[in-house]
Amino acid sequence: MPELRLNLITREWVIIATERAKRPDEFRQKRDKKYLPDHDKSCPFCPGNEDKTPGEIMKVSSDGSWKIRVTPNKFSALSFEGERKRINEGLKHLVTGVGKHEVIIESALHNTPTALMPAEDVADILRIYKNRFLDIYNDPRIEHVIIFKNNGEKAGTSIEHPHSQIVGTPVTPMQVRDRIDETTRYFDNTGECLMCATVKSEFAEGRRIIFDTNHFVTFIPYAALSPFHTWIFPKKHNASFGDISDEEIADLAYNLKTVLSKIYHGLDNPDYNYVIRSESPKESGSEYFHWYLSIVPRVIQTAGFELGSGMYINTSLPEEIAEFLRKVKTDS
Amino acid sequence: MPELRLNLITREWVIIATERAKRPDEFRQKRDKKYLPDHDKSCPFCPGNEDKTPGEIMKVSSDGSWKIRVTPNKFSALSFEGERKRINEGLKHLVTGVGKHEVIIESALHNTPTALMPAEDVADILRIYKNRFLDIYNDPRIEHVIIFKNNGEKAGTSIEHPHSQIVGTPVTPMQVRDRIDETTRYFDNTGECLMCATVKSEFAEGRRIIFDTNHFVTFIPYAALSPFHTWIFPKKHNASFGDISDEEIADLAYNLKTVLSKIYHGLDNPDYNYVIRSESPKESGSEYFHWYLSIVPRVIQTAGFELGSGMYINTSLPEEIAEFLRKVKTDS
Repeated sequence: MPELRLNLITREWVIIATERAKRPDEFRQKRDKKYLPDHDKSCPFCPGNEDKTPGEIMKVSSDGSWKIRVTPNKFSALSFEGERKRINEGLKHLVTGVGKHEVIIESALHNTPTALMPAEDVADILRIYKNRFLDIYNDPRIEHVIIFKNNGEKAGTSIEHPHSQIVGTPVTPMQVRDRIDETTRYFDNTGECLMCATVKSEFAEGRRIIFDTNHFVTFIPYAALSPFHTWIFPKKHNASFGDISDEEIADLAYNLKTVLSKIYHGLDNPDYNYVIRSESPKESGSEYFHWYLSIVPRVIQTAGFELGSGMYINTSLPEEIAEFLRKVKTDS
Repeated sequence: MPELRLNLITREWVIIATERAKRPDEFRQKRDKKYLPDHDKSCPFCPGNEDKTPGEIMKVSSDGSWKIRVTPNKFSALSFEGERKRINEGLKHLVTGVGKHEVIIESALHNTPTALMPAEDVADILRIYKNRFLDIYNDPRIEHVIIFKNNGEKAGTSIEHPHSQIVGTPVTPMQVRDRIDETTRYFDNTGECLMCATVKSEFAEGRRIIFDTNHFVTFIPYAALSPFHTWIFPKKHNASFGDISDEEIADLAYNLKTVLSKIYHGLDNPDYNYVIRSESPKESGSEYFHWYLSIVPRVIQTAGFELGSGMYINTSLPEEIAEFLRKVKTDS
C-alpha cells in the first residue's frame, strides 16, 4: 500500500509510491558524461577570463592566484541600483526589481565538482556564503536572501564551471512566510522548535540518518519529495545561517562534501540543486525557525500532478535511500 | 528596471526580468521534432492494444470504434482498494495511499495533439473530465481531485499518444488550502470573488487578454510564472468544474483548443502541462473560490532559485506574450 507522508515544515503531502518504488541504484544516471578539461578557454569563469565577469566583489587567493571569486551576476534578474518602490493599482501589486544577484565561482579549476573537492575548500566556499549573506542583508532594500547551487542542465544551468549563486530580493517570498508560520504554530502547540524536534525524532528512529558529526546531521526527510532529497540540519538550534561559527563551517563542509560525494559515486554524478533555508539575521534570535540545507538531485521530472497539486510522487523509499547512501564509499 | 509582480491567488512574487526579457518568438523550440505515425504497434494506447491497459472505465465511440477511452493508470501512484487510515506517531503523520488514478486516452490516433483536434473532439474529452471528476468525488475516501495533462518529455511524460490524467487523493493538498484561504481573505476584504475581480480588471486593461468567448476569457496572468503561462477563466462565478454546463463545455473546448493551437504554431509544438484548479463539488456553492484552467508551456527550466524561494523568474513580458499570441493564426 502506498503511503502519504506529511512534511510538517511545508504541510505538503508526499505520495511515497511503495508499489512503484525503485531500488536506489536504479536512479543511477545512464547518459554519457562528457570529458571536462580543468581549463576551458571559452569559459567565462576560468582563470584568464576575469574580464568576462563584472567587477569582482571579493576573492580567496592562495599562492598569488585566486581560488574563489565572487562577482555580480552578468545576467542578473534584479537591478543593483535604484529605489525600492511599491506601486499598487487595483489588483496589480508591484515592487521595483531592485536587489542583489551574485555568482560564487567556487574553484579556479573548470572540472572540480563540490563532491570531489577537499572539505577545506568547501569550507572556504561556505565562509564566502556567510560573508555575502550578512553583507547583502545590510542593504536596507533587501528583505530576503537565498543561497543556492544549480549543478547540471537538469538543475537549470548550462555553465559547467562549479559555481553557486546568492540572490537578495526586496520582498519576502510567500514560501518562506509559510514555513515560518508553520514552525511558529508547531512551537505554540509544543513549546519546541520543529527542527530541533525533528533531529531528536530522527536519532530516536535512526533509519533515515546517513551520518552525523559534532554539529550536523545528514539524513533523508521522512516525507522526502523526490528520490535522494537530503537534509543537513544543525543539531543546535539556530534560526539564521549568518550565525554559523568557524568550527561549524568546517563541520558543515564535511557533511556537504561527504553526502555530495556519496550521491556522486552512488548515482554517477547526477544533476542537483541545493539551497540554504534560513531566517534573516534580524530574526537570528527566533525560537521558531531553524536554518538548514536541502539537496535535491534531479533524478526525476516533475509533471502536471506536482504543478496542479503541490504534492509530489516519490518513487523511492526514504529509508532505503538512507541505507544505500550509508554504504556508498567516498574518496574523503 | 525589473518588476516583482504579486500573484494574488498564491501570494507568491514573480520577478519579471524586463532587462533580460526575450522576444516571444525567441521561445520557439529548436529541437528536431520526430515524425509520428498515426498508429504505433508498440504504443499501449493505440487501437489493437486495448489489452495492455487495465479494464476500461468508460469510452466514447463513433462508427463502432472508440474515440476516447478511460482506464485505470497501470502504474498508479495510489491503491484503488483499501481503507483510508491515518497513523500518527510523533512527528510522522501518515495516510494510507488509497485513491484513484485514471488515464484519459484522448484519441485513437497516435499523433493528434489537442492543438490540432476539432473543437468538438476536445469537448468530448472535457465531458469525460466532468464525468470522471464527479464520479471520483463520489468515493468517500477521496478528498481532492486533480485533472492534468503532461504533453512531452519536459512536461513529464514519455508516452507520445495524446492522453491526460485524473488523480483523486485521500487528502487535500496544502497548495489547494492556501489558494482557498487567500481567495476567502480577498472576499472578506472586498465582498467579491478574487477571480471575478480579476476578469473585470483584465477586461478593463485589455493588454493581457488573448481572446474571449461567451463564457470564457483566455489571458496571460499579470504575474505569469513563466513565458506563455496562460489562464482560461470562466466569466461567470463558479467554484467547481463539476458544475460546467454542456454549452460551457463547447465554449471551453474552443478556448483550450484555440490557445493550444496558437502556442503550437507560435512556438513550434513545445512541451506543456495544463491543470484544472477547482473546488470539490461539495463546495460548489462557495462564493470564495472560482475554478480555472492553467497552461504552463515548458519553455524554461526551473532551478535552485525557484526551489529555494518559491518565487519564479520570468524572462518574458506578459503583455508582449499576449500580443504575440493574439496575432498567431490558428487552423480552426
